[in-house]
Amino acid sequence: MSLIIIGTVAFDAIETPFGKTDKIVGGAATYASLAASYFYSKAKIVAVVGDDFHQSDIDTFTKHGIDTEGLQIKAGEKSFFWSGKYHNDMNSRDTLITELNVLENFDPIIPESYQDCEYLMLGNLTPQVQQTVIKRLKNRPKLIVMDTMNFWMDIMMDDLLETIKMVDVLTINDAEARQLSGEYSLVKAAKKILTMGPKYLIIKKGEHGALLFHEDQIFSAPALPLAEVFDPTGAGDTFAGGFIGYLAKVGTINFNNMKNAIIYGSALASFCVEKFGTEKLLNLTDEDVAGRIQEFVSLSSFTIEA
Amino acid sequence: MSLIIIGTVAFDAIETPFGKTDKIVGGAATYASLAASYFYSKAKIVAVVGDDFHQSDIDTFTKHGIDTEGLQIKAGEKSFFWSGKYHNDMNSRDTLITELNVLENFDPIIPESYQDCEYLMLGNLTPQVQQTVIKRLKNRPKLIVMDTMNFWMDIMMDDLLETIKMVDVLTINDAEARQLSGEYSLVKAAKKILTMGPKYLIIKKGEHGALLFHEDQIFSAPALPLAEVFDPTGAGDTFAGGFIGYLAKVGTINFNNMKNAIIYGSALASFCVEKFGTEKLLNLTDEDVAGRIQEFVSLSSFTIEA
Repeated sequence: MSLIIIGTVAFDAIETPFGKTDKIVGGAATYASLAASYFYSKAKIVAVVGDDFHQSDIDTFTKHGIDTEGLQIKAGEKSFFWSGKYHNDMNSRDTLITELNVLENFDPIIPESYQDCEYLMLGNLTPQVQQTVIKRLKNRPKLIVMDTMNFWMDIMMDDLLETIKMVDVLTINDAEARQLSGEYSLVKAAKKILTMGPKYLIIKKGEHGALLFHEDQIFSAPALPLAEVFDPTGAGDTFAGGFIGYLAKVGTINFNNMKNAIIYGSALASFCVEKFGTEKLLNLTDEDVAGRIQEFVSLSSFTIEA
Repeated sequence: MSLIIIGTVAFDAIETPFGKTDKIVGGAATYASLAASYFYSKAKIVAVVGDDFHQSDIDTFTKHGIDTEGLQIKAGEKSFFWSGKYHNDMNSRDTLITELNVLENFDPIIPESYQDCEYLMLGNLTPQVQQTVIKRLKNRPKLIVMDTMNFWMDIMMDDLLETIKMVDVLTINDAEARQLSGEYSLVKAAKKILTMGPKYLIIKKGEHGALLFHEDQIFSAPALPLAEVFDPTGAGDTFAGGFIGYLAKVGTINFNNMKNAIIYGSALASFCVEKFGTEKLLNLTDEDVAGRIQEFVSLSSFTIEA
């Protein structure tokens, strides 16, 4: 039994109103696998980097029990690099630099030892690469979770729809749900998207929380109101990683476990934004996580006697 | 013991992507008192109309057990009239016509029979008129809830701050909380606003629900995701009316009852937007309300075992 996370492993340079970083390790697979590691101890990543990626960077994964056999290191090439600057409201950002580098010809190779995959997280990448991973697994995983973004809707909707058809859970934000469905109402949008393949749809609303749709059921998860959002980079990937990590741990897929998985994912994401990059995700304790979960319970519980 | 609701009673002409109305009865006190009537049967209103307001309009209040002794009818004058058009997203609107009419010189007269007031809802009006009502009550009510809007922050912040100082609960939206406090983070905004007088702050976030702040406690209430929002007019007033009506019914002010009051207010508001104007609020049954509350419980409950 294993959990595979595919996505970017990259260098980011981030500027927020609170400061800026040099090149630090980022990428969807990095955030997601670190988050998952708090619940499930043997996540395996599939990703590609250049030889500018150092052994010490790889050690960070290993320290968290993350299997890097599927991390390809391309000699003579450079890792994917993204640089961005957040505006004062932290809800919008400008991309300053995108260098695809090794990502341009990424061929996701699945090591033989990964073939027992039961839980698959497809981090945001081209829909073709995501699809290739599904096809290269000899047995269809028990649960496939897919993250994507508006960019692929803009330039390759057909490929995207083909990949979406193959997954169980789709995670997108509210604007993306509206774009994908052509419906403004999120209820109508969800209804349409749930006919496209996924059995579960998660609509991420940032500071407003997340909605989970499944058949006729809806769950509304709160976001933790924070005094300070230091750096939102990776929050969505952290959410997804915590989500699938929790499900891999409990091992049973149903609506109730999905709801809890969203709370765990949200809790990890709320830590992520408190420091630059992955910093806060590197050294959480079980008590930190349990305390944060308790905050979510207090935040949203009420008792109405009929 | 009584509940007083002060606010506008008015005529509205509303246009949405779903259609348009002629002049229909609206106004903050109308929506709030109708909503409150589902929980508390003897709400008293303080408001002013012209003689274009018909006996049949007054009968609507009476039928819901609402006391209209404090509704002044100005002979030879016209009622407040507002006309607006909603955009396709239903989140923004253009005001087409505002005729203040009787509202221009509104002097809120408190009938002697209203002097047993324990619960006071100050619907959105000039801060001076809101303050006058507080001063004309011989005994300070047990709970004063105040609604206001950005308009008063723009043109009479000093008066507004003076009135805010006198109330227990302030209800505003997220943009207004940011404007009033000068803080972008709602946690920081709430912290500041809770030093201005109110012991409780409710930040309304429309389709994203509402946040309740009190001392160091926060409650996040979901909004019910709706397939169709037909007409958002009066939703905030309906929320406030359901909120204070529920509190007047239970009779004890504490954080738990406040949380439930927000759920009841949100439930009433979710009905309000399903039809034009007050239409949906006129004929709800107890079963309708109980069913909707159950939807809120399902929507937001999760069980995490530690």
